[in-house]
Amino acid sequence: MAKCLVVGGNGFLGSWLVDALVDQGHEVSVFDRFSSGQSYISTGVRAIVGDFMNHAHVRAALSGQEYLFHFLSATTPATAEDDPTIDIRTNIASSVELLEFAVEAGISRVFFASTGGAIYGEQAPGSISELALPAPISPYAIGKLAIEGYLRYFQKKHGLNSVAFRISNPYGPRQKSNNKQGVIPIFLNNLAAGRSVVQYGDGSMVRDFIYVEDAAKLLANVVNYEPRHPVYNIGSGEGHTIAELIGVISQVTEVELDVQVVPQPSTFVDRVVLDTSRYRAEFGEQQFVPLSEGIRRTWLETAGKRA
Amino acid sequence: MAKCLVVGGNGFLGSWLVDALVDQGHEVSVFDRFSSGQSYISTGVRAIVGDFMNHAHVRAALSGQEYLFHFLSATTPATAEDDPTIDIRTNIASSVELLEFAVEAGISRVFFASTGGAIYGEQAPGSISELALPAPISPYAIGKLAIEGYLRYFQKKHGLNSVAFRISNPYGPRQKSNNKQGVIPIFLNNLAAGRSVVQYGDGSMVRDFIYVEDAAKLLANVVNYEPRHPVYNIGSGEGHTIAELIGVISQVTEVELDVQVVPQPSTFVDRVVLDTSRYRAEFGEQQFVPLSEGIRRTWLETAGKRA
Repeated sequence: MAKCLVVGGNGFLGSWLVDALVDQGHEVSVFDRFSSGQSYISTGVRAIVGDFMNHAHVRAALSGQEYLFHFLSATTPATAEDDPTIDIRTNIASSVELLEFAVEAGISRVFFASTGGAIYGEQAPGSISELALPAPISPYAIGKLAIEGYLRYFQKKHGLNSVAFRISNPYGPRQKSNNKQGVIPIFLNNLAAGRSVVQYGDGSMVRDFIYVEDAAKLLANVVNYEPRHPVYNIGSGEGHTIAELIGVISQVTEVELDVQVVPQPSTFVDRVVLDTSRYRAEFGEQQFVPLSEGIRRTWLETAGKRA
Repeated sequence: MAKCLVVGGNGFLGSWLVDALVDQGHEVSVFDRFSSGQSYISTGVRAIVGDFMNHAHVRAALSGQEYLFHFLSATTPATAEDDPTIDIRTNIASSVELLEFAVEAGISRVFFASTGGAIYGEQAPGSISELALPAPISPYAIGKLAIEGYLRYFQKKHGLNSVAFRISNPYGPRQKSNNKQGVIPIFLNNLAAGRSVVQYGDGSMVRDFIYVEDAAKLLANVVNYEPRHPVYNIGSGEGHTIAELIGVISQVTEVELDVQVVPQPSTFVDRVVLDTSRYRAEFGEQQFVPLSEGIRRTWLETAGKRA
């Protein structure tokens, strides 16, 4: 049992991670603004209401903790794209400050939510391993790669251990579609509201979708080991085109989607499927919730909210 | 003949670049604080005194220019190491702002002074090509890699062409030793002042030293072409140990150095020698000033200043 602080633990991925950590018997604290009520379902979690930009709040939260999960992003891919300098000043700079406070607090290991979906940029066809040369195009992913660099620096300079998770495209309940992040909740919300959905490009864009509860289990599992690598791809390892996705959504919801096609933005890459063999070799295999079942569960929540 | 603006053109590398561009017949403007008098020797250069942090200054300087050389660094490896967040707020954020202004001004191509000496981090033995996976450890290099990422973003998003030069370890006259950057000027200055020199580690650390005038010629040469790659290593392609360097300095200066050995800092990598075949295949071969001759020229300046 470890003392875990999840910064951003009330967010989409963070809240599922909290539940997975509690399931494994860890003592979990969550640092978050809690601006929209509690997202995780576990009991016995210590909720620390605070502002990531407030140094005193962050320092107080870190005190006495063993593991730090940095799962807070002050920006989304969409907001970072609109103004890269906001991302630099808030996400990158604040993450470095967080790491400084983690050193002060004697944290044993930092786990960082990086991005597998965007960090690699355009790559040759096939699944992408951690040895591929990252070529991020979006400011969001450029910032994540920079933070991975600072993790390396803090390890060398201050002996702060860390692991970065390059997570593909997690989806599932609790994901807010108003963040403009996540094609699945955006599609489902538009569907529930009787609106058309916007497809970027011809539908051939491929993504590695992973049901968020599966992703959270993979992440929480690493706490029980001494990780051998600084970076792990976290994904299903399976690719689906946007056209396939639309087909699955139609089937699950029994509604024909009204698809509006617009050109693919220049900063969207064609294909991202992660090679997850590094993780599997070290931490074992896991069964994944199939895309149709994951969408069914997400749709239950989306449709339920509107009922 | 092109209209070139060199931001940071009164600095060490920048001023040699200015001279090389003027030699090639280009129309050169320099944007710099000029805090310590003029460094370049060329005539006919338009000097624009301004502050990189002042948006109006930067925008005015960019107006009517064709090529932008971003050769200004608000930090050095040493100052960035002391406080990474300063580097993030000044270098990274300000570079993104510069690129935004470059788009506004209709700049044809940006040339960026990245670092080949520090961007790769620890690598397998042998010379390092642009295809190696960068693993920068120092905040200075993490910042440079992030800026390379933003160049990619501006290319995709706004069609702003750019080239990043990963320059190894340039040395030569005009390099200020008080910046704590550059082992050669630091050694020569200490020698001239009758002080001992500090060697990090056992002397086996290997670096790719390039005489600054050679480096500047390689850079200026690219202006005449349509570059095929976004990134080029710029170096001599030859490695020298610190022990060898001390031997060459002794020989050239005819002074026995008083060497003080201290442990190698954790963020110093053991070996950096660049594979420069990408540059040579595209832009041709160049003769290099040998290390002993380069040190002789540098020593002439150092000793001359004190005489």
